[in-house]
Amino acid sequence: MTHASKDIIEKIHRYWRAANYLSVGQIYLLDNPLLKKPLKIEHIKPRLLGHWGTTPGLNFIYVHLNRVIKEQDLDVIYICGPGHGGPAMVASTYLEGTYSELYPDITQDESGMKKLFKQFSFPGGIPSHAAPETPGSIHEGGELGYALSHAFGAAFDNPDLIVACVVGDGEAETGPLATAWHSNKFLNPIHDGAVLPILHLNGYKIANPTVLARISAEELSQLLRGYGYKPYFVEGSEPMAMHRSMAETLDTVIGEIKAIQQEARRKGKATRPQWPMIVLRTPKGWTGPAEVDGKQVEGTWRSHQVPLSQPADKPAHVKMLEKWMKSYGPNELFDAEGRLVPQLSEMAPQGDRRMGANRHANGGLLLRQLRMPDFRDYAVEVPGPGEVQAEATRVLGQFLRDIMKLNMDRRNFRVFGPDETASNRLDALFEVTNRTWLAQTEPGDDHLSPDGRVMEILSEHTCQGWLEGYLLTGRHGFFSCYEAFVHIVDSMFNQHAKWLQVAQDEIPWRRPIASLNYLLTSHVWRQDHNGFSHQDPGFVDLVMNKKADVVRVYLPPDANTLLSVADHCLRSRDYVNVIVAGKQPEAQWLDMDAAVRHCTSGIGIWEWASNDRGSEPDVVMACAGDIPTKEVLAAVSMLRQHAPDLKMRVINVVDLMTLQAKEEHPHGLSDYEFDTLFTTDKPIIFAYHGYPYLIHRLTYRRTNHRNLHVRGYKEEGTTTTPFDMLVLNDMDRFHLVQDVIDRVPKLGTMAAYVRQEVRDKLIAHHHYIREHGEDMPEVRDWKWSTG
Amino acid sequence: MTHASKDIIEKIHRYWRAANYLSVGQIYLLDNPLLKKPLKIEHIKPRLLGHWGTTPGLNFIYVHLNRVIKEQDLDVIYICGPGHGGPAMVASTYLEGTYSELYPDITQDESGMKKLFKQFSFPGGIPSHAAPETPGSIHEGGELGYALSHAFGAAFDNPDLIVACVVGDGEAETGPLATAWHSNKFLNPIHDGAVLPILHLNGYKIANPTVLARISAEELSQLLRGYGYKPYFVEGSEPMAMHRSMAETLDTVIGEIKAIQQEARRKGKATRPQWPMIVLRTPKGWTGPAEVDGKQVEGTWRSHQVPLSQPADKPAHVKMLEKWMKSYGPNELFDAEGRLVPQLSEMAPQGDRRMGANRHANGGLLLRQLRMPDFRDYAVEVPGPGEVQAEATRVLGQFLRDIMKLNMDRRNFRVFGPDETASNRLDALFEVTNRTWLAQTEPGDDHLSPDGRVMEILSEHTCQGWLEGYLLTGRHGFFSCYEAFVHIVDSMFNQHAKWLQVAQDEIPWRRPIASLNYLLTSHVWRQDHNGFSHQDPGFVDLVMNKKADVVRVYLPPDANTLLSVADHCLRSRDYVNVIVAGKQPEAQWLDMDAAVRHCTSGIGIWEWASNDRGSEPDVVMACAGDIPTKEVLAAVSMLRQHAPDLKMRVINVVDLMTLQAKEEHPHGLSDYEFDTLFTTDKPIIFAYHGYPYLIHRLTYRRTNHRNLHVRGYKEEGTTTTPFDMLVLNDMDRFHLVQDVIDRVPKLGTMAAYVRQEVRDKLIAHHHYIREHGEDMPEVRDWKWSTG
Repeated sequence: MTHASKDIIEKIHRYWRAANYLSVGQIYLLDNPLLKKPLKIEHIKPRLLGHWGTTPGLNFIYVHLNRVIKEQDLDVIYICGPGHGGPAMVASTYLEGTYSELYPDITQDESGMKKLFKQFSFPGGIPSHAAPETPGSIHEGGELGYALSHAFGAAFDNPDLIVACVVGDGEAETGPLATAWHSNKFLNPIHDGAVLPILHLNGYKIANPTVLARISAEELSQLLRGYGYKPYFVEGSEPMAMHRSMAETLDTVIGEIKAIQQEARRKGKATRPQWPMIVLRTPKGWTGPAEVDGKQVEGTWRSHQVPLSQPADKPAHVKMLEKWMKSYGPNELFDAEGRLVPQLSEMAPQGDRRMGANRHANGGLLLRQLRMPDFRDYAVEVPGPGEVQAEATRVLGQFLRDIMKLNMDRRNFRVFGPDETASNRLDALFEVTNRTWLAQTEPGDDHLSPDGRVMEILSEHTCQGWLEGYLLTGRHGFFSCYEAFVHIVDSMFNQHAKWLQVAQDEIPWRRPIASLNYLLTSHVWRQDHNGFSHQDPGFVDLVMNKKADVVRVYLPPDANTLLSVADHCLRSRDYVNVIVAGKQPEAQWLDMDAAVRHCTSGIGIWEWASNDRGSEPDVVMACAGDIPTKEVLAAVSMLRQHAPDLKMRVINVVDLMTLQAKEEHPHGLSDYEFDTLFTTDKPIIFAYHGYPYLIHRLTYRRTNHRNLHVRGYKEEGTTTTPFDMLVLNDMDRFHLVQDVIDRVPKLGTMAAYVRQEVRDKLIAHHHYIREHGEDMPEVRDWKWSTG
Repeated sequence: MTHASKDIIEKIHRYWRAANYLSVGQIYLLDNPLLKKPLKIEHIKPRLLGHWGTTPGLNFIYVHLNRVIKEQDLDVIYICGPGHGGPAMVASTYLEGTYSELYPDITQDESGMKKLFKQFSFPGGIPSHAAPETPGSIHEGGELGYALSHAFGAAFDNPDLIVACVVGDGEAETGPLATAWHSNKFLNPIHDGAVLPILHLNGYKIANPTVLARISAEELSQLLRGYGYKPYFVEGSEPMAMHRSMAETLDTVIGEIKAIQQEARRKGKATRPQWPMIVLRTPKGWTGPAEVDGKQVEGTWRSHQVPLSQPADKPAHVKMLEKWMKSYGPNELFDAEGRLVPQLSEMAPQGDRRMGANRHANGGLLLRQLRMPDFRDYAVEVPGPGEVQAEATRVLGQFLRDIMKLNMDRRNFRVFGPDETASNRLDALFEVTNRTWLAQTEPGDDHLSPDGRVMEILSEHTCQGWLEGYLLTGRHGFFSCYEAFVHIVDSMFNQHAKWLQVAQDEIPWRRPIASLNYLLTSHVWRQDHNGFSHQDPGFVDLVMNKKADVVRVYLPPDANTLLSVADHCLRSRDYVNVIVAGKQPEAQWLDMDAAVRHCTSGIGIWEWASNDRGSEPDVVMACAGDIPTKEVLAAVSMLRQHAPDLKMRVINVVDLMTLQAKEEHPHGLSDYEFDTLFTTDKPIIFAYHGYPYLIHRLTYRRTNHRNLHVRGYKEEGTTTTPFDMLVLNDMDRFHLVQDVIDRVPKLGTMAAYVRQEVRDKLIAHHHYIREHGEDMPEVRDWKWSTG
């Protein structure tokens, strides 16, 4: 039993035909959009690109959602998981008018329709997936796997929102999607909105059937129930029966969603319900050509892309295309000017209830400034360089705690991480909030609550997907991750950076959103018992391949610089910010004023550690990263003791982008500035947190690059002590001293003496750790001193 | 009802106690391994690293598998999914004797036990995960997510093997693991072995409960049945009852596995059965301290790492540790010399039935040379450079087809890819084999068969995991992937490369295995309708961060070079080989003899395209990659027409490693060779397939680096024509001509004329594609000519 009358069902069917017509038109037509003239080869695009297979199903879902939105005044966004679903999303948002509002050139008439058709998958036009260009989308359909985690991210803290999320059965085979179903254990029926997953089984990928379409109905139902959902099946191919079934099912599931929410909200008790979902099984390429050149097309993988692919060679294909398009009855759908007939256009919701105009899908419109305390209030007191120790991330945790507290009532800030918030020493957060948890609890559980704002699941993919969905709908977030394992989301970072790039450059109606902030900690230099498999500082290399407009990388050397950097990142917009900082107790170098000054310039001479007093130094000692900074300072203090006449300049880099040329990155130093810092001809010993090549890549154009000698991680690692890790990679103080000796001829005769001493120390250390399992007290307890 | 008598159960329990004792000893003790003396702080390691939580469960499974292996003479390997399971795998392989056979220093007596304890998570020792160092392991427990896909990879084509795969409930939350359950749709009960998943629910991660431990028993059972398994539950904490239940259950599931296999093999009909699996629910830190410092430890996340963490500060912790270790009754387990008592040592299987000695887990022992036809037989006939066109990957497909055919009876070669074997034009394979498929089939399905050897699932993670498992157990494989989306498995590549590195460098008993071969195709330059989201050539950058000993990158410019490179890669051992090659019809440059010569040197002057005739050129035109090669040749032919006096040298790079310094990579050119090719002072215009920085990073130390000008992908991309993609990234022939003009002063007055012509062409092209949607015939149909 459904609210949808026969009349409505018929209108739905016509509206769907209009969307399908516009979809086919986009794939094929250059001209003659309303088929007023007999279709000729010159009306057809010379290169046929685009994908029909998934499109009619997506249009089907769109029009049915329109009905319930309008009837019940719902707030719904549509996440289009299936790849190449572009034609559908464009057709449906064009029909409802949003497309023309955002792209005034694409008018709702014949000339606009012609442009709409031409631009699709055409040079200077639009891509064939849902994309930043697509109204109402927060999801790129190019790389598959993230639809559901994006959907949940959007639903968190949006209690009135329903996120309809279409999951293709191809995408359903990916790992990230397969685990994202479990996001329902993190969704609070009181304060969050709802996600309505619609698993679209059209049976095929590019050339293969899909797994979920080829297991028994019983297994599929068990799987989805096992994931915690109550599946409703809408299956078939006869359109009118399918419309009735879909309308009825949508009424049911929306009813259940409302009932779940109302009950939880009335009782004020959030438990995990069995959320409803829909399994929609339709033929692939539904309503397209049944058979082409003697082979079945509709309902097979052959309709994945372009069912009629050779109109230029086969005149029959032109005829078939015309027949196919006319089967939708364009004359009954559009008037002579190409406008959707009023009877149909009134079917769409109004204003920003239209899914293409929903403000949640253009999150920048809703973004509110995060309330932030003054980060200076969290400063570690540093009476002198190296005089106190602190755990940088623990200090950051206090700042994050109070940000959390200040924004608690707005519910627009969450912290994400795969089970590592406490391990990464951000546990001050648990003074004001908990871990989100709607699965079962047991006595003794630690800080779990249905209303927690720290999101932990052992899936970097899910954390990243949730966070992206949360940011794209206009909120703020922070992701802390083991440095080595952030590579798990390399490709998700790539896609998000590309989204930001396109949105910034090409889509003026997309408003800036909060940056995606990574804290990479538990880093390469402190994997004492995890060893080689946990050592990979290469994420930064990947990040630096993206455009300067969208990426920032910071390596704060201590707690106060970390605070300053984090403050900056949380205020920024439309970037991916990567912060690398260790969690272990380490010496602190800068008091807060110095830290702010240092972070503001991003790079600078540490005069207190240098002894060149404004003259040209004999050697430049540069460092980026907490551990390299400490080693450089230790090397400097050794050298000052052994070679008091050696003039050294210590440069610390917080903002890696400063090293790049000014033309390549807005943060880049000018050549003049760079030369002033690094000299034009003195040796530079540079200790860098990650792979040393990166520093060369950033600086190869600089005047003094030929004298630049970089130490960093070179894939030498194992289960060992912190200092031994440095030794293995030649980045410890002793090696750095040796590097200086090798490059500064004036050290003369004392060089041999120091060299021997360095060698003795390394041997002594080697033996010591194998005996004691920990570093020699001399290096473990080392303190900065120029004495 | 079980075969395991009361007596056996009691022995199992004692054996388990011995394994647990050895596990705790590894985490804690430096000395006093048999606790002959009262335990003192000096017997305890100063730094306590390692993880107890998962260990007793892993030992429990090990000893129970030992019983069935021995009783039924089974061929079983053990995949230890849970992170930090190292102590268990080491303890259990030590008890069975394999550890001492592979590491003769670690004897089976008191002094060996002391060394065994000390080395764990100790400098110069072994890591705390299952790792290459661990006997019987093909799986690194560091990064979670790949246990099940490794297990299935090992089981393929090993009909007598049972792969017992322990999945931790932490790991079960990862995406790759969540989808790998579906691998059962690709396992053939006739020709493949069996995978026995053992989901170990101990309830907690580092600080959190796990999702699967906190859903209802009904949901969990539905989930696993939905994945296609028949779950058996072994749940509890009372050891003797648990032993009985586990023994009984193991007898049942082994019986079912055998029955499934026997029936399928008798009937000769492979269908997908409901494979059995075990859910083992035990307390985390089982048998460890129940309570420490007033807080519950056993059965909570507090036992994840080191339950007693402060022996140095709290003398009570030392006492508790002693009590804990003595609770296993070491006196009853080991004799006075520290040898396992004979009654227990006879419990382990013999010879290579011991899981630590199983030859499948040291695949190099079983590796047989792939039978390969002469790749020259597949040559494209190239009468002259650019005179014919071919699709490089299609040609490769024919070579792969015949490799497949020649090795069909040995069943030791498979091709993997996420649904793209045909799309990547390797479809000749389907002439001799099919896609593996044991889910339902329907009429019209294309080349699906339970016995197919092409593995396609829309999960790069699963493809990679299967392939790794297949290679590590001594077979051969080939993975073709969309270039942009291979980033999905960045971190899996990292981990596999690290495994190879350690195995090569440090573990003489690990025999070389076949290389992991990637073909990256559908690459950045041909994403005509996919656009920006499908453009990322950065995987190579990641690969180059790994050590020279284990990685190779090839960019064959045409079909014959691709054949030669692929032949080389398929014969190689212990590498990760990355081949980048397009699938579209492109001009062919080298006949087979020239291709072999060129690939053998990896880099070389193309004399037929050069006109410097042995003298110093005015400019060096270098290229790497199929598309850059074509553009460089087009630029060269334009320049030869416009500036016949300009002396150009064309260098093509197939093997990217040749650019590195000889000291950094064995393929690297010496500086003398490099200077001879690239000159020491002439401009070099280098068109590279990927991000241009990489070429700078590889060559910054070369003499002529200051004159090196690299073009490549710089994140400028959209939905457009192939040639426009080049224009957007300044790598098209016109820009390259301009680059030459800008750098060669001798071109003098004609420069202005050429510059104008180039500008006109670019404008004309811009207008043409927006009108026609495809490239101007002039560039589309361009042919090499020096006229």
